[in-house]
Amino acid sequence: MTLETRLAEIDSYIAQHRQNALDDLALLCAIPSVSAKKQAQQPCAEFVCTLYEKAGLTARLIPIPEAPPIAYGEYRSPNPNAPTVLFYNHYDVQPAEPLELWDSDPFTLTFRDDKAYARGVGDDKGHIVSRLLAFDAIRSVSGGELPFHVKFVSEGEEEIGSPHIGSFMETERDTLQADYCIWEEGGVNEEDAPYLYCGMRGIAYFELHVKTIAYDAHSGMGGSLLPNAAWRLVWALSRLKDSDERILLPGHYDKAIPASERDMELLASLPNDYEDTRTKFGLPDGGFLGGDATRGAEYMRRAVFEPTLTICGLDSGWQGEGAKTVLPSEAHAKMDFRLVPDQDPEEVHENLKAWLAQEGFDDIEVCYLGGQRPARVDPDHPFVQLAAETAIRVYGQRAVITPIVGGSGPMWWFSNFLGLPITAPGIEYPGVRAHAPNENIRLDDFNKGTRHLAHLLLQLDAIA
Amino acid sequence: MTLETRLAEIDSYIAQHRQNALDDLALLCAIPSVSAKKQAQQPCAEFVCTLYEKAGLTARLIPIPEAPPIAYGEYRSPNPNAPTVLFYNHYDVQPAEPLELWDSDPFTLTFRDDKAYARGVGDDKGHIVSRLLAFDAIRSVSGGELPFHVKFVSEGEEEIGSPHIGSFMETERDTLQADYCIWEEGGVNEEDAPYLYCGMRGIAYFELHVKTIAYDAHSGMGGSLLPNAAWRLVWALSRLKDSDERILLPGHYDKAIPASERDMELLASLPNDYEDTRTKFGLPDGGFLGGDATRGAEYMRRAVFEPTLTICGLDSGWQGEGAKTVLPSEAHAKMDFRLVPDQDPEEVHENLKAWLAQEGFDDIEVCYLGGQRPARVDPDHPFVQLAAETAIRVYGQRAVITPIVGGSGPMWWFSNFLGLPITAPGIEYPGVRAHAPNENIRLDDFNKGTRHLAHLLLQLDAIA
Repeated sequence: MTLETRLAEIDSYIAQHRQNALDDLALLCAIPSVSAKKQAQQPCAEFVCTLYEKAGLTARLIPIPEAPPIAYGEYRSPNPNAPTVLFYNHYDVQPAEPLELWDSDPFTLTFRDDKAYARGVGDDKGHIVSRLLAFDAIRSVSGGELPFHVKFVSEGEEEIGSPHIGSFMETERDTLQADYCIWEEGGVNEEDAPYLYCGMRGIAYFELHVKTIAYDAHSGMGGSLLPNAAWRLVWALSRLKDSDERILLPGHYDKAIPASERDMELLASLPNDYEDTRTKFGLPDGGFLGGDATRGAEYMRRAVFEPTLTICGLDSGWQGEGAKTVLPSEAHAKMDFRLVPDQDPEEVHENLKAWLAQEGFDDIEVCYLGGQRPARVDPDHPFVQLAAETAIRVYGQRAVITPIVGGSGPMWWFSNFLGLPITAPGIEYPGVRAHAPNENIRLDDFNKGTRHLAHLLLQLDAIA
Repeated sequence: MTLETRLAEIDSYIAQHRQNALDDLALLCAIPSVSAKKQAQQPCAEFVCTLYEKAGLTARLIPIPEAPPIAYGEYRSPNPNAPTVLFYNHYDVQPAEPLELWDSDPFTLTFRDDKAYARGVGDDKGHIVSRLLAFDAIRSVSGGELPFHVKFVSEGEEEIGSPHIGSFMETERDTLQADYCIWEEGGVNEEDAPYLYCGMRGIAYFELHVKTIAYDAHSGMGGSLLPNAAWRLVWALSRLKDSDERILLPGHYDKAIPASERDMELLASLPNDYEDTRTKFGLPDGGFLGGDATRGAEYMRRAVFEPTLTICGLDSGWQGEGAKTVLPSEAHAKMDFRLVPDQDPEEVHENLKAWLAQEGFDDIEVCYLGGQRPARVDPDHPFVQLAAETAIRVYGQRAVITPIVGGSGPMWWFSNFLGLPITAPGIEYPGVRAHAPNENIRLDDFNKGTRHLAHLLLQLDAIA
């Protein structure tokens, strides 16, 4: 059988068996595995193992102390010299709320207009099912076996920042040795072009807590005398970033590696969503941070190569209707730093505490809620290039390559700790509404993403 | 009948008829006239008129556009040359919540341990009933008539900042001409000494609203590009007051009249609650604003003679459990300025808007929720001195005189707009828990405050 024939048969297999895969996906989406609520994680992990076994993997739950287990699947190819592909996915989902904004039940996979709707249908349960369907398709043209070894990791806490992935990775480092890694999700961009991303920003998430007095006071009686927690918080925050968006922590930018010429070249080849994003958020022309300079390539660079500090929430005193004359005893802020290589969240934590103390705010308690290191993969690695190339047959064009995305994930553990090249064909499109009501995938993207992955995996020997 | 005899008979009348007055108070407290909820205001105003008429006043409701009516009572003494006394009270109360912290129903007057408990029993329904009982007592020794004219104003919005008292005062200025004014509440201090206060700070209450983008964004995608409402708010607030508690609005202190020598003398004669307040709020010694300097007379001065700016509430983005990586589109602050004579809330409003615009924050919407002008009464006015003197027979000591209190009220309309001397014998004590669960008065204070008022009113001719 020629490669051409085999790829055509894979495509045909996927088309014929898609409904079976979607039936599995419906069962998987019906398990409301919301990690933020510690909900249904164990049964979901068990069901993922069932799906692994159906796809010919040997499955087991790997326990993690104080965390839901990893659903782990393994397959040994009869060819001992075959490469090993490690898959990183997650079986947990974001909360479905606000429920009233869904047009169908979030935990019932529902088909409308050639789309499938459910919480997790894209992020990330659809990808798990797509990958297992790709294995079946490859087997169907490879004598019932896969020409590569598989290690399949699905974790249960990705949506809450993967707080325990590090301890798992450190414990199971030997188990997880591999040659390539397929990342959890991917798909097509605004122009329906497949994209591959080669990195993620890091994150360090903090709460600041201030408590100044034993309980709230009357502003008329206490305003002249009692330290106000809300003011302490405001003054402390104003010493973390100035109104030019410059983060004031000493040395914060020292380890931030600027975009290279190659990065700028890659960014220039990507669709520029300046106008779409501007319109979506109701900003005037030139209204992005950085003003008129934030256009074109600089807009694209700034979106992903700039360290940020975002206040995610503020909370103090009276927030209800009307005028309550209260002097708050407590105030709280939530905030995240987004980090670029080689910034380190633990270092940011230490710097933040030291800087607040130095600026006179040692009354402010810094709670580190979690962090992830930034990660980069060489966009010119043969594995990434092969993934770009194998897109042509499916999408009619090479995949475009994004040097790094603005979001964060546990990629560093795979790219740096394990040292793997990483890429991610996938089934999503820009309308996926991940984390939002009416999360959905287009059924055509499910086909294409599954085909792309299968084509890539079938041709790994091209880069052996 | 000698003055001595008449005062003794007044005391005896009050003792004998106190239970009738408390029965009326029970009916008045049973009406849940919570102005913050626009609840039961009209029926409460009508019932106050019923009580007026029972006490021999001619009563009517004076409507105010878009506000609950004033319950207005009038009495003309047979002596046309008698002085006119204007009473300012209010029939509305604070919300009773949190209900679970009450030991008895907040709208059922309940007697325990020689105290009476109910929402409004002190602030301010108990004072209305006390004043009407004082009238009855005076009549009983004055041939069935009062030796002064009465104008009795009870408003229904004091607890929400008297937003419509100004329009009422301007419309009814002629109706309200008088010689003396009795203010809504008073009583005894921590040392069980009667006190009289001669002013209130003003207030200007604002909400700041910021909206930067059409809706909340993902911090990973937007942190580098989208203006964050929470940051805008923090930076704007940090330009309103610095961490030395100095308000930064240009000219804000220009009209603030400092405490005079006489004020400092009066403050020095008051009990100093430094230790009590410090302990109550869990502050270390020297922990008040201003640090070690804020002790003794300076502590007393700072409490009431210092303009303040208090953040009462902050609200933006995610305030729930854990790490949500959101970039908030909106942020809100509530804050009040406390003003000393002759600062003006309308001027503060204009200055605030101009200053924010000047500092680059014209995207911040300033909502003026209401204000009251600061008010002062001459502590050496014969009316105030007579009130201090007439305390001796009831309390065994002259009343102590407080030059101004830290809280705010519509006193300016009576002290400055009508130009009246003002004082306030009353029935409260420091444990009254006004605005809090288990609001209560001591029955002994009810007797004493009523006697004090009656004694003062009977002897007005001493200062004619």
